[in-house]
Amino acid sequence: MDPKRFAQQIQFVLEIDKEKNILRQTHLSGHGRQENDAEHAWHMAIMIYLLKEYANEEIDVAKAMMMALIHDIVEIDAGDTYAYDTERLATQKEREEKAADRIFGMLPADQRAELRSLFEEFEAFETPEAKFARAMDNFQPLLLNASNDGADWKAHRVHKSQVVRRQEKTDLGASEIWDYTRAIIEDHVAKGNIQDD
Amino acid sequence: MDPKRFAQQIQFVLEIDKEKNILRQTHLSGHGRQENDAEHAWHMAIMIYLLKEYANEEIDVAKAMMMALIHDIVEIDAGDTYAYDTERLATQKEREEKAADRIFGMLPADQRAELRSLFEEFEAFETPEAKFARAMDNFQPLLLNASNDGADWKAHRVHKSQVVRRQEKTDLGASEIWDYTRAIIEDHVAKGNIQDD
Repeated sequence: MDPKRFAQQIQFVLEIDKEKNILRQTHLSGHGRQENDAEHAWHMAIMIYLLKEYANEEIDVAKAMMMALIHDIVEIDAGDTYAYDTERLATQKEREEKAADRIFGMLPADQRAELRSLFEEFEAFETPEAKFARAMDNFQPLLLNASNDGADWKAHRVHKSQVVRRQEKTDLGASEIWDYTRAIIEDHVAKGNIQDD
Repeated sequence: MDPKRFAQQIQFVLEIDKEKNILRQTHLSGHGRQENDAEHAWHMAIMIYLLKEYANEEIDVAKAMMMALIHDIVEIDAGDTYAYDTERLATQKEREEKAADRIFGMLPADQRAELRSLFEEFEAFETPEAKFARAMDNFQPLLLNASNDGADWKAHRVHKSQVVRRQEKTDLGASEIWDYTRAIIEDHVAKGNIQDD
């Protein structure tokens, strides 16, 4: 064991503990409290494993899971950006890149490069793993929200076109899950939980 | 997509959301609130990936990560059993097996068998993946607690022999991390955070 290398790894491990305090807009099922980023990432990783048969293309499951587990670490500095907050969405990229520099920068050089690359791959949305992980990033909060009678959509008075714009990229990673998502959206529009345009 | 199969998978995905409400005795770093099982599992999975070079034997990283992610799902029914609660430890196995029947039982047969097998493998503590995942199961709360000046050990008036008994199995999965753990224990005994026997 190289003590300096290990110390860097441990420093990073303790730093990411802060992700458990980053709250999202989504609420836990059973009309629970707000979910945090670590819980969301845990849920996504399990969904990637369990629902991999619906991925449009063959995926490296471990890679997609690790992508999911780390994709929100940057929010320790940059904060959560709500999917329908246009103002903060405009500066999201810049805030998150700066955060990635600092936080992944704690790791030894090889792992810094590896995790940064996984993060950038997720963001770039091009590989089969990134597309499927992104599909789960959309589908996980949708499922929770749908289980709560669309309470988060109602609270933010979200319109159908906004939900569709956010969710439709699920089609790139998992077309069958996009079909299922569309049915959920229509159901919640019919119930008035999502506002029709 | 087989709608019945997918419905079973989605039912399971929503059921495990409850793990986010199972509190552990460990507190978040920065003298934070109690950690929950989902956060602990998320942290463990990332640690498996980042610290795999310290595993005593070669491991299948995806398998060990998935083991970590699901190992506490049974606590949705069985509750968290504190490592130093001898009374509840006596009934832990029985409570957790019953919970595994119900919760993994929600999945389609093939995935029910797969996840149950991963869970049993973790419990059996025999394979390289189980040994390393268990090492992280010990090391993750130790790191948080050490970062909080041993507040959890102090609150429970824990003795050195208890901490050693709990942590020493880390040696089976990651000897170098056990050496590091021993140094942390000695340091906290010296500081009076852990009671000497």
